[in-house]
Amino acid sequence: MDPMKISVIGAGSSYTPEIIEGLAKERSSLPVYEIVLMDIDEHRLEIMTAFCRRFLDHIGCTEIRLTPATNLKDAVAGSRFVVTQVRVGGNQQRILDEKIPLKYGLIGQETTGAGGMMKAFRTIPVMLELAKEVEQNNPDAWIINYTNPTGLITEAVTKYTKANIAGLCSGGLFPGWYTAKALSVPAETVTYDYAGLNHLSFASNIRVNGRAISEDEFDRVAEAAARGGVDYNIIRALRLIPSPYLQYYYHTARRIAATQKVGRTRGEEVLAIEQEIFREYADPKTVTKPEALKRRGGGGYSQVALSVMKAVWTDQPARVIVNTPNRSAVRGLPEDAVVEIPCRISAAGIERLVSTHLPASVWGLVAAVKNYEQLAVEAAVRGSRELALHALLAHPLVRDADTARPLLDELLEANRSYLPQFSL
Amino acid sequence: MDPMKISVIGAGSSYTPEIIEGLAKERSSLPVYEIVLMDIDEHRLEIMTAFCRRFLDHIGCTEIRLTPATNLKDAVAGSRFVVTQVRVGGNQQRILDEKIPLKYGLIGQETTGAGGMMKAFRTIPVMLELAKEVEQNNPDAWIINYTNPTGLITEAVTKYTKANIAGLCSGGLFPGWYTAKALSVPAETVTYDYAGLNHLSFASNIRVNGRAISEDEFDRVAEAAARGGVDYNIIRALRLIPSPYLQYYYHTARRIAATQKVGRTRGEEVLAIEQEIFREYADPKTVTKPEALKRRGGGGYSQVALSVMKAVWTDQPARVIVNTPNRSAVRGLPEDAVVEIPCRISAAGIERLVSTHLPASVWGLVAAVKNYEQLAVEAAVRGSRELALHALLAHPLVRDADTARPLLDELLEANRSYLPQFSL
Amino acid sequence: MDPMKISVIGAGSSYTPEIIEGLAKERSSLPVYEIVLMDIDEHRLEIMTAFCRRFLDHIGCTEIRLTPATNLKDAVAGSRFVVTQVRVGGNQQRILDEKIPLKYGLIGQETTGAGGMMKAFRTIPVMLELAKEVEQNNPDAWIINYTNPTGLITEAVTKYTKANIAGLCSGGLFPGWYTAKALSVPAETVTYDYAGLNHLSFASNIRVNGRAISEDEFDRVAEAAARGGVDYNIIRALRLIPSPYLQYYYHTARRIAATQKVGRTRGEEVLAIEQEIFREYADPKTVTKPEALKRRGGGGYSQVALSVMKAVWTDQPARVIVNTPNRSAVRGLPEDAVVEIPCRISAAGIERLVSTHLPASVWGLVAAVKNYEQLAVEAAVRGSRELALHALLAHPLVRDADTARPLLDELLEANRSYLPQFSL
Amino acid sequence: MDPMKISVIGAGSSYTPEIIEGLAKERSSLPVYEIVLMDIDEHRLEIMTAFCRRFLDHIGCTEIRLTPATNLKDAVAGSRFVVTQVRVGGNQQRILDEKIPLKYGLIGQETTGAGGMMKAFRTIPVMLELAKEVEQNNPDAWIINYTNPTGLITEAVTKYTKANIAGLCSGGLFPGWYTAKALSVPAETVTYDYAGLNHLSFASNIRVNGRAISEDEFDRVAEAAARGGVDYNIIRALRLIPSPYLQYYYHTARRIAATQKVGRTRGEEVLAIEQEIFREYADPKTVTKPEALKRRGGGGYSQVALSVMKAVWTDQPARVIVNTPNRSAVRGLPEDAVVEIPCRISAAGIERLVSTHLPASVWGLVAAVKNYEQLAVEAAVRGSRELALHALLAHPLVRDADTARPLLDELLEANRSYLPQFSL
Repeated sequence: MDPMKISVIGAGSSYTPEIIEGLAKERSSLPVYEIVLMDIDEHRLEIMTAFCRRFLDHIGCTEIRLTPATNLKDAVAGSRFVVTQVRVGGNQQRILDEKIPLKYGLIGQETTGAGGMMKAFRTIPVMLELAKEVEQNNPDAWIINYTNPTGLITEAVTKYTKANIAGLCSGGLFPGWYTAKALSVPAETVTYDYAGLNHLSFASNIRVNGRAISEDEFDRVAEAAARGGVDYNIIRALRLIPSPYLQYYYHTARRIAATQKVGRTRGEEVLAIEQEIFREYADPKTVTKPEALKRRGGGGYSQVALSVMKAVWTDQPARVIVNTPNRSAVRGLPEDAVVEIPCRISAAGIERLVSTHLPASVWGLVAAVKNYEQLAVEAAVRGSRELALHALLAHPLVRDADTARPLLDELLEANRSYLPQFSL
Repeated sequence: MDPMKISVIGAGSSYTPEIIEGLAKERSSLPVYEIVLMDIDEHRLEIMTAFCRRFLDHIGCTEIRLTPATNLKDAVAGSRFVVTQVRVGGNQQRILDEKIPLKYGLIGQETTGAGGMMKAFRTIPVMLELAKEVEQNNPDAWIINYTNPTGLITEAVTKYTKANIAGLCSGGLFPGWYTAKALSVPAETVTYDYAGLNHLSFASNIRVNGRAISEDEFDRVAEAAARGGVDYNIIRALRLIPSPYLQYYYHTARRIAATQKVGRTRGEEVLAIEQEIFREYADPKTVTKPEALKRRGGGGYSQVALSVMKAVWTDQPARVIVNTPNRSAVRGLPEDAVVEIPCRISAAGIERLVSTHLPASVWGLVAAVKNYEQLAVEAAVRGSRELALHALLAHPLVRDADTARPLLDELLEANRSYLPQFSL
Repeated sequence: MDPMKISVIGAGSSYTPEIIEGLAKERSSLPVYEIVLMDIDEHRLEIMTAFCRRFLDHIGCTEIRLTPATNLKDAVAGSRFVVTQVRVGGNQQRILDEKIPLKYGLIGQETTGAGGMMKAFRTIPVMLELAKEVEQNNPDAWIINYTNPTGLITEAVTKYTKANIAGLCSGGLFPGWYTAKALSVPAETVTYDYAGLNHLSFASNIRVNGRAISEDEFDRVAEAAARGGVDYNIIRALRLIPSPYLQYYYHTARRIAATQKVGRTRGEEVLAIEQEIFREYADPKTVTKPEALKRRGGGGYSQVALSVMKAVWTDQPARVIVNTPNRSAVRGLPEDAVVEIPCRISAAGIERLVSTHLPASVWGLVAAVKNYEQLAVEAAVRGSRELALHALLAHPLVRDADTARPLLDELLEANRSYLPQFSL
Repeated sequence: MDPMKISVIGAGSSYTPEIIEGLAKERSSLPVYEIVLMDIDEHRLEIMTAFCRRFLDHIGCTEIRLTPATNLKDAVAGSRFVVTQVRVGGNQQRILDEKIPLKYGLIGQETTGAGGMMKAFRTIPVMLELAKEVEQNNPDAWIINYTNPTGLITEAVTKYTKANIAGLCSGGLFPGWYTAKALSVPAETVTYDYAGLNHLSFASNIRVNGRAISEDEFDRVAEAAARGGVDYNIIRALRLIPSPYLQYYYHTARRIAATQKVGRTRGEEVLAIEQEIFREYADPKTVTKPEALKRRGGGGYSQVALSVMKAVWTDQPARVIVNTPNRSAVRGLPEDAVVEIPCRISAAGIERLVSTHLPASVWGLVAAVKNYEQLAVEAAVRGSRELALHALLAHPLVRDADTARPLLDELLEANRSYLPQFSL
């Protein structure tokens, strides 16, 4: 196997060491000789490059070269995989995404609801620029996208460029983890049907070693899944394992009340944690991942990313749940709609598995959110305030026009400097 | 043309004189010799039969025979059209449909939201009994259904029987009326695309004498349409004419606040009006429709019903907007889903016109409500509390499980005596 | 109603007086004040213009102005309807379309099989030029296309231009005529389901005054339909009324043998008849349609054309069977495939009626021919010999590659001067 | 892993030693302890059981138990996999399948054309009996079907029973073999898109180690593929690798002439070879597969069968091309139509991969043959002579009604004793 170069875009992210560690461990199947770390924040990049160097040396992986870069063109050139984890506007804007909707009595969340739309508006132009660079100058490369909201990003990239992209999320692994924990079986023995959108997915028909689990076993899995945030009783009633993000749909008022009670948003917590993490990264004595990283959350992404990269590189096919255009995999959704579904990934790329129908109890909710997503992508690309309003009216968590209009005004104003495509 | 017999089921309704009057006026094309008035409320039936007799005599239509009936079999036998306008549980239950959701901070409405579901639960078994009678003993007859929620009723009847049914609503005429008023043109010159569900429909691409209206003209139509309850600004932003019932989706909080402020529901108003109307009907001196009937609302139904009956009877085809199973008329909705769409109606029955796609800004909302509708129909037929919960979780106006569960308990309890299919 | 101008393209056709006569008779609903007669054959145009003038005067219709034209731009400008009936290459090429396939033991026919493909190749560029003229300079006009093969022409025009077009054929009327004749009922009382392609259509579910006909009645209709060329026994076995052109599919060998026995093709007969007809047209004493015209065949087109024009002009909707892009009207065929189906035509244009599924016994044949048609249209537009070969391999009446290859060579060579788009 | 029992139905087939050998070699992943050999021909069964015993002992595999059975119930009970390779009517009827169509100037072939239909008619009732036995008494078992025509058999079984079945053919491997040979690469490095029906499939988009092959390389693959029977020039023109059976469609006349020239059908050759093979099997000294078996053809089946069984048993997923109901994998074909497509097979069963569209040049042919197949399955199940006629009219290789009718009469008569479902 030829050695290969990988780039990480948005390498100033606190997650970067996780992917670096994964790549180091998988050298036998993914023979990386160089990792380009690219970020526009030169300060964080410097800290991260130095830390990753120490970290790799510490785990005895001195032969992987680390190259910092602040320029997209350099980072993309020659890379087999372009891992993307950008956060346009940083945690400051995330906190606004959370707080502004909350003022209107709505869910304020990084990827779900009006906040997620603003994140998409800020991020899509940046990701399209990157994807066009890949399309033109390195068309065989694969974008391995971690950037949220990954469904909308992937839809924008697949609609407006020809770049290869896999939209990743660890959420596709959760039903297996819940089942493994509840039934004390290895996660690898668990399979299930799975369909929906990123952060709006449902698993059903769970099997262990190919045998369907019993009703009683399902209830135990439901108990484990309920720790994700959707009530045990609802999971039992639906007989489906929902993404934890469904808590924002099924327990809207409770989630809003809880955030208001805590008085600080997740973004604010993350901001504090990240400051702590970066203090440690910056310390020349730190050679392992800081303890605080565990509180950061979001682990598992690198597992999915490594599965995809290994399957493409080694042509050892893997069944991975990714975000990809629907074609005819899921009935009732548009062909160009990006969905989160099981796929077979190999050197030949992404092959969709034909899904069973979306479950009878939730297909309308999935359609409603997909409608919002498609409108939001168009609004983001065209910079259209009118389409942004359509998107909020279409969103199940907003819908009320009397709220949507002033909310949109305030959100656009608060993001003014990050939305060049809108004439604000 | 052969003379024909028509039956009116639920003839104790205050609307009955409107359909009687329509039939009297249309005798040249619909040669009715007998109208069977059927109701299980013998008191109201007696009053209504007597009034209608006086009314028909007064307008010089002595040759139409009026036959009261309290038995379904008698009413259906030999009738060419079976006009259905039943209200199971009467206004008392309607008021509960409105008031109970309101207690939970939700829209309380006769056809929209949780209240509409309860109306469907009470009504579907009764309508299925009727449809099975038609199917078995008079299969060439047509059910002309006014009974609300007409979409759910029609879906239950078409899924569980083979009876011919047209699910009617005057809502399909509204965009034409708005346009006629706004632009001072005859309503007959106005055409438009139209798709969606009953009370969840959208008109677009309005034309007058085949010419598309201008943007300015649209704005004037929007102004007229806004009197239906959806804000002018929202109609302008969407460039669609929504059903007035969309006010419950786009102005949810405002509608709830308004009802709470008034302190009495529409059902309570109607109850009072109907008492007044029936006092007049019962007065042997009353020979014309009471003034109070205008305050009752809902006019226009008979116009649609007469159009359908004339087209079927005379085989003079008419383009009428009715509720009917989708087949492939509207993309993205299930084939068996009842939709409200333009059809060509003739002696050959209902021929669907292929719709343009549902508008890009609203297809997800339509899917979400259709998902609720299909779950509600199944819950109603099977008497399943679990499916009823699924239906409320799927409904955009309920969704929150923490509300849905206690709300459902209270609604089922309050309807206990009208829901034999549920084991309550 | 405003008076209107109509143009007839290919007015040198012997059919022209039929449409002129129809327009004269329908003046009350189609107030034509001018008919532009356009043809590139100045000699025939002169004869035809003079005859039509005498003919119109003879039937007392002096006020309709007749204007000869040899220029497309002049003919299209200001016309409400552009009636097209062109024959590129004339009867001479038609005879080659018939004779060359016959040499290879294949059906040689004007619209069906390899001959029809050549007619499409010659005609599509001419029709696209016309449609682009309409699109750019008279976009509200309607092309009323008689030109064969009308399905392929309509598909080319709807794929490559935005001009309004209705692709006509009298074939949609045949099942009604057969039924009327067999059962001695007026054709207007007969309705039926109908789906397929031009010259490859099937009627089913025949009704008279809305009542389904009996099995015995069907057999009598089958007897009448069998005079079209498909055997009575086959029609009975299929329980469908096929287009007469299905004889080329179900009685291939017999049709070939019959033509070979006769020793002259239909084109050669027509050539002789047309010479006779034109001698009469040219005679200044001729003021009525020549007797020989009846032997020319193809009547009924003008009836369909007038129905469409009246429905569009007066906005009195008509149910007419026309060729138009499928959208979702017929299941299993591509959305952009032109199909021949019942539509509702009005000032608003063509509204497709949702078809029942194609009959279970013939959907594959329809798909096979549609596949050929789509390949032939692409071959015609791009001038691709390779796609032309694909088209012949896809055609159920050719398919054998060992025949298709030399046959294609000979056909292209024989049409060399009419196929500028091919580099021959 | 638990040891497992497998049964082979139709074990008197000369192919049986191949599957036995495969199972012996794969013991490490497929721990078979018993193989039930079932056949209704006791003589052949006795010879085969004895030979297989000697063969297994010879290759040192004494621990696998061989159990002869003449009863379906016994064979199915307790078997994890039921391998089916039955030939109802034997070679005698096969020869009639070949010879009778030939008399009418049509392709006479075991699986393609009218002959294949008769094989389906004889075999479907037998296979349905077996599948119902599996469904009722061993529902977790998998039917591994070799029996031809495998597409029709699989469609009948999946429509009329709930038994698990994988319809196998080695044809899905051919494009890989051709490519491997032409380009001197290992077959495992070759991937391709693939869609169609059994013996009517097309591969495209060939890749080696994930890289698309060049136009020149395609031409070399085409050369290798052409040895299958379809001309090099046609393969090149289509840019698709067709199943070798497409020779019957693209070189119909040539194939018929060749068979007529040889003067003996493939069935007659096989009959002679099989007699030779069985003489050797019967010889107690024979302990290895006879040389003559190579001339028998059809190798590769066991490779596919073993792939499927291993993937199901070990839950090590494999991408295998099998015959399975379409759902939405292939656009334009009915959902219940069995298609031959790449699937992911694991303990969870068959997961379809979403196909690209059927190639633009051949989708109509695939639809036409699928239409025939669905009609033939219905005719076989219902014993309907009328549907059998519909099937022949729908078949691209028959179609002409003047031939189809007498041909059908003769075929049914010649199969009278094997078609109890028809009232002959």
